[in-house]
Amino acid sequence: MTADLDRQFAGKRVMITGGLGFIGSNLAHRLAAAGAHVLLVDSLIPEYGGNLYNICGIENRVQVNISDVRDTYGVNYLVQGQEYIFNLAGQVSHLDSVEDPVTDLEINARAQVTLLEACRRQNPGVRIVFAGTRQIYGRPQYLPVDERHPLAPVDPNGISNAAGEWYHLLYSELHGVHACSLRLTNTYGPRMRVRDARQTFIGWWFRQIVEGQEIQIYGDGAQIRDFNFVDDVLDAMLLAAASPKSAGRVYNLGAEPISLKAVAEMLVELNGSGSYRLVPFPAARKAIDIGDYYGDTKRIAEELSWRPQTGLREGLAQTIQYYKTHARHYW
Amino acid sequence: MTADLDRQFAGKRVMITGGLGFIGSNLAHRLAAAGAHVLLVDSLIPEYGGNLYNICGIENRVQVNISDVRDTYGVNYLVQGQEYIFNLAGQVSHLDSVEDPVTDLEINARAQVTLLEACRRQNPGVRIVFAGTRQIYGRPQYLPVDERHPLAPVDPNGISNAAGEWYHLLYSELHGVHACSLRLTNTYGPRMRVRDARQTFIGWWFRQIVEGQEIQIYGDGAQIRDFNFVDDVLDAMLLAAASPKSAGRVYNLGAEPISLKAVAEMLVELNGSGSYRLVPFPAARKAIDIGDYYGDTKRIAEELSWRPQTGLREGLAQTIQYYKTHARHYW
Repeated sequence: MTADLDRQFAGKRVMITGGLGFIGSNLAHRLAAAGAHVLLVDSLIPEYGGNLYNICGIENRVQVNISDVRDTYGVNYLVQGQEYIFNLAGQVSHLDSVEDPVTDLEINARAQVTLLEACRRQNPGVRIVFAGTRQIYGRPQYLPVDERHPLAPVDPNGISNAAGEWYHLLYSELHGVHACSLRLTNTYGPRMRVRDARQTFIGWWFRQIVEGQEIQIYGDGAQIRDFNFVDDVLDAMLLAAASPKSAGRVYNLGAEPISLKAVAEMLVELNGSGSYRLVPFPAARKAIDIGDYYGDTKRIAEELSWRPQTGLREGLAQTIQYYKTHARHYW
Repeated sequence: MTADLDRQFAGKRVMITGGLGFIGSNLAHRLAAAGAHVLLVDSLIPEYGGNLYNICGIENRVQVNISDVRDTYGVNYLVQGQEYIFNLAGQVSHLDSVEDPVTDLEINARAQVTLLEACRRQNPGVRIVFAGTRQIYGRPQYLPVDERHPLAPVDPNGISNAAGEWYHLLYSELHGVHACSLRLTNTYGPRMRVRDARQTFIGWWFRQIVEGQEIQIYGDGAQIRDFNFVDDVLDAMLLAAASPKSAGRVYNLGAEPISLKAVAEMLVELNGSGSYRLVPFPAARKAIDIGDYYGDTKRIAEELSWRPQTGLREGLAQTIQYYKTHARHYW
């Protein structure tokens, strides 16, 4: 399936915003291998996920444009002639959004509008896949959470992401710009940012386990989450981009639910050494914690035939191995 | 009840953003009469609702500051020392939001964040009442629509308003800035903008009936809406501002549902002359039409003891009379 899917992008002009980041760069490797003409747009804001090492090995097969999605003129030019846009650039830190909600809104909502306007005016035939987030559901009212669950963000980042997603759906409906959103849950894998816990705790855990530091789990460790290996997320993105059915649609990603404590245990086991400890929630984290979460993925299974292929154990092992080998480019 | 309620604002420092607009100026008249120290902040953007004539008679009892809520420095200064903020400034045209979604977002979401940040940093003890809108529900999934109805905006204005409201609720929860939102439905009454149909059809209808022009109704006229007379909306705002219970809450306003055709008939009858005609929906309007709507107002009735006091017939009659007398200041 994967080979057939990837072949559809051979020779296509594809733009990836946030293209030097975690998911964007993995997508770049895959699309470059498939023979697509890949344009990576990334601002390389130091605290964000962009890292030039992420495209090590494909530097000469992709085009890199260092610019910010808030740069309206740049975006207006860059979208022209693209057949697909994977729109992954974003401010993803919950805590940063609490401290600087204006920047968060400008990147995650205002820049999305200007990108969509640019497509509406200059390239209405493009297909856009937006990287949304399950975070916009807020604290789950029921489990598993399906796409009809009410949206109730618990931090500014959730608000800006909800707005950014809505704009995509609206441009699909009002202006015929084919756009859809995947609501990502915890994604992990090679090339993710592991410099600190600013964006994701799981990235930080990979670093701690590889460095031999003790992993800290907030609370009792019983919190439930679901984790997708990045390759499975790429499958979903390519399926959504390729399908005519996806216009104006949102799809949850997700996987088997598991407690954070069980994940930490698995990391220790796979690494062959290490430890974890339960610590009290810092107040700023507790205020925006959402309790248990796992998503219902029936819709994307039915409409796009997506199913995650990589088990958690296998994915974690691959990721640990990646950081053991490439540590110095990510620490 | 009204007198007791209003007395609570005597001697209080109150800021109204959008204070020269329709609802803001009516609120200014009421609070000035109650003996509050009223600061009106308004940008007087020509196409919006601000009109200096709206404060005719209270010019010397209120303070007017012509500035835009997007002016972060101005807002930072102006919020200081205020005990109440009625946050009514907004871009309210659905059609304008489709043509210029960036301006819509900057006024309705970005400026709201900067105002809330200013309160968080400079005046966390303030109480804020935000003028939200039922428009964020989109096309009703059931009727009457209560506050738990999912949000699904059908135009950029709905997205920016949802974000603006969410920020208020979040600042209440995360930062202890007392803020609440009233989800207004169709509000009408003296001092509304009747220059064209850019913002509300009902304003435009008042002008047409008073000028002896034929009222045009899109579609078959069977669309259901609910209408609040502006004085009832002011009651709700003052109740929400005065109650400790309102922190972080949203409340629907609303009234007896009625078809648009019945409203047009009532206008013709009350005016003593005039006519209406059914015309096909213009395509741009149809795309963002929401079908039937009326709200469930149980929550605000129970928590804040709000009930609309002015029947539609009486409110329409008062409004027609206002525009017959003051036409030249509004045409």
